[in-house]
Parts: sequence; C-alpha cells; structure tokens
Amino acid sequence: MTYTLILLRHGQSDWNEKNLFTGWVDVDLTEQGRTEAKRGGELLIEAGLRPDVLHTSLLKRAITTANLALESADLLWIPVKRDWRLNERHYGALQGKNKAETLEEFGEEKFMEWRRSYDTPPPPLDDSSEFSQIGDPRYADLGDDAPRTECLKDVLERMLPYWESEIKADLVAGRTVLVAAHGNSLRALVKHLDGISDEDIAGLNIPTGIPLLYELDEDFKPAVAGGKYLDPEAAAEAVKAVASQGRK
Amino acid sequence: MTYTLILLRHGQSDWNEKNLFTGWVDVDLTEQGRTEAKRGGELLIEAGLRPDVLHTSLLKRAITTANLALESADLLWIPVKRDWRLNERHYGALQGKNKAETLEEFGEEKFMEWRRSYDTPPPPLDDSSEFSQIGDPRYADLGDDAPRTECLKDVLERMLPYWESEIKADLVAGRTVLVAAHGNSLRALVKHLDGISDEDIAGLNIPTGIPLLYELDEDFKPAVAGGKYLDPEAAAEAVKAVASQGRK
Repeated sequence: MTYTLILLRHGQSDWNEKNLFTGWVDVDLTEQGRTEAKRGGELLIEAGLRPDVLHTSLLKRAITTANLALESADLLWIPVKRDWRLNERHYGALQGKNKAETLEEFGEEKFMEWRRSYDTPPPPLDDSSEFSQIGDPRYADLGDDAPRTECLKDVLERMLPYWESEIKADLVAGRTVLVAAHGNSLRALVKHLDGISDEDIAGLNIPTGIPLLYELDEDFKPAVAGGKYLDPEAAAEAVKAVASQGRK
Repeated sequence: MTYTLILLRHGQSDWNEKNLFTGWVDVDLTEQGRTEAKRGGELLIEAGLRPDVLHTSLLKRAITTANLALESADLLWIPVKRDWRLNERHYGALQGKNKAETLEEFGEEKFMEWRRSYDTPPPPLDDSSEFSQIGDPRYADLGDDAPRTECLKDVLERMLPYWESEIKADLVAGRTVLVAAHGNSLRALVKHLDGISDEDIAGLNIPTGIPLLYELDEDFKPAVAGGKYLDPEAAAEAVKAVASQGRK
C-alpha cells in the first residue's frame, strides 16, 4: 500500500458514561476509557504498526487516549501536532444536556435530526453558558469565528483543510499517521475517504478505543472500503452499543 | 520581564531509584516520580504560570513528566516539540551500571571525573550493548553521528543549537516556554544562561519535578541568577539528596 493511516476514537469519557452531549466540553476519560486507550496501543503493536506521527484535537479525552496508547506501544517520543479542526462536533445548546432528557423534551424527530442529520445544527450555545469556549486561550486564534454549534457538514468543512494540508503531507512524506480524535470528526473523515453519501453517513458509528486502519492508494482511496478495525469483533459489538445511546 | 522560561527536570525514574547510570536508556518514572510530576503541574498553577508551548527530549521519563504536569495544570492541549538535543547526557559504557559499583571499581577519582568533570567523557558504549540506541527509529535521522558517550561540554554543544533556533524563537514570539528535560541537559542550559564557569558547574544540582522559573531580559540574561524554584524549600532539600547520590 502507498499510505498508512490509523484512526483512533478516544476511549469512554465521563460524559459518555453519564449520557450527556459533550461536544467541545473538555471532559476526562473514565477508568474504562483509559483501559480502552492502553488496549488500543497494544493492538497497534500486535498488528505490527508503528505510527511515525500523531495528530490530535485540542480536547484532553483525545490527547490522553493518544498518550496512553503511545505509552503502551512505547512510542511516546513520536512528533505530535494538535489542532481544533480535529475537535468533536460542537453540539451547541445541547452540550451538557442529558441525551435521554433531550429526547423527552424535544421528541424523537428533533433528537435524531440534531444527532444524525448531515446539515441541521442544534440551536447555538449561548456565550454566557458555563460550557462556552469564549475566552479559552486554546481557541484564542479563532477569535469570534469559534463555532457555537455545528452539524456534521460543518465539521467536515472545517476538518478537510487540516486533512489536506497537514495529514496528507505526512502521508506523502511516507509516514504512518495516527489520528486520535472524536466520533464526529472521524465520521467526517471516513465520509470523505469512503465517499459515503450525506444520507448513509447517519448510519455509521465509530467505536471508542479500537484503531481503524486505512490503507490508501496514491489517490488516497481506501484499499478496503470502511478500513479495517484492529479488533473486528470488539468493534462490531461496540458499534451496536453506540447505536443504542440515548435509548433507555 | 521580557521572556518567561520554565525548566522541569523529570521526576524520579526506575534507575534513579536503583542508583544506575541512565543516560539515553529509556526508563520509566517510578510512582514517586509520577507524583512529583503531578505536583510540578500544581506548582505552575499556584504560581499563576501558564506555559504556551512545551519542549521535551525523546526520552519517556521527560515526556511523561510533562504529560502528567500538564494534565494537572489542565494544559494538555498546548503544542509540543520534541528533540534528541534535550536528551540526558549519554553516559557511555557506564549506562546500566550501579553507581556505587562504579565507584568501587574505578575509584573516587575516575567516578567524580566522569560524573562531574566538564570535558572528560566516560568510555564509549559499545554498539553491541543492549543499551545502544543504534537501530532505534527515534534516532534514525542522526545515523552514525549518534553519540556513544558524552561529557557535559558535549551536551552543551549539541543542546545550544536547539536553544538558539527553537526555544528562543518561541520566547521571542512572546510564549511562556516549558522545557521538560534531564539533569544534565538542564545543567548545560543553566550554565549557559547564568554564565557559570566550567569548574563551578560541577557543584550545581537540579532537583527532580520542581519547576525552575527564569525571567529573562531582552538579551536572555536572567533577572535572578540561578532562577527561582517554585517550591524553594523542597528544592533545597532535594539538592542535598542529589549531591549524595552514589554514596552509600
């Protein structure tokens, strides 16, 4: 294969466990999430994969997942680049809300529209919210352009320039690239790589903590559509669990 | 002050604890070392310091120290640059040897000469040694220029270009810089900053896990000679302990 790309969704976070919309809120991993991350590193070794460079979001659940995975793969020393463009989808006014409550309050239709529709963002987060990132030094460069809400289409549009300029450059330089990011920033990338339609992407879930390997040809087309999970059985089980989130 | 520089020596490592010469051997932190690292991050917060960028060596005891400190300071997201030029001094054939044994085998004079003399390196490490870094992908770019042994003068000479080109550039850009590194790479930097003589540097020990703050003027001269430890009492105690290493 020409290029080797490994995607890793962060392990379970405090708010995954509590069933809250998280988005750009910077929550920690749970103990289970930390265990998943370490296992992710072991899966890399078992598969004979050695990332040469790491790309992460600016959110600690992705950064810590990468650190723990690289620690167990004995690769803490590889260079790392971080960018807000790999952040999770901004969930707007839903951030911090219980998913089951949102479902009850707004009903099944709105809930599924905001959660899975390609181009309908939830209501924007108010700048006075405790979850607003306004004033957070890590987004200082963004100024007033920082998003207050995003649909998946928005995520794809702000993620793609980073894919094009930073990640592709590392792949072209012959590096095996590890991207440690989030459910929706990775769904956006997978949509782009696999050419998934705006409709079909709604049905795609990426499990936490299981490295997803893409071997790409010179046109960055996947050798195998959908890539290859390094632990396919665990991935299949986890996908089922993600799909049922918010359903008590 | 014009520039803010924070130096952090890694917390206690497995081989500090066992009293072995470590050098470029990539050993882990002990639990005590991890606790020191977390405390280092708390000291940053208590002092109102917020690093904008991190520089580390390629050795995991420095990288993990930085990760733990930044985790407790809630700054995991800051950009990081890693370079072998910040590595610990290469201890040559002494690597992996017990300090007390070396002292017995070679005598006080040789021991102190290799340990503290500015320009006498120990015998080189054989490429066939289990501790040789030959073939280690992290040093692939160095090729056959990778050191087999170093005196402090060698460390200073390979560290300075990194200080000049990378760290100074971040300072000049107005960033508060955190350097997470090692006893001897930091002694070399301190020697340069404070203008310490080749003789006097032998008496200088830097304690583990306690951030050392340098405020520098426009000529990169320290406002206070020797900088300022963020926990001065703990630093004074630790310096005494370091000075007695190898003396049973």
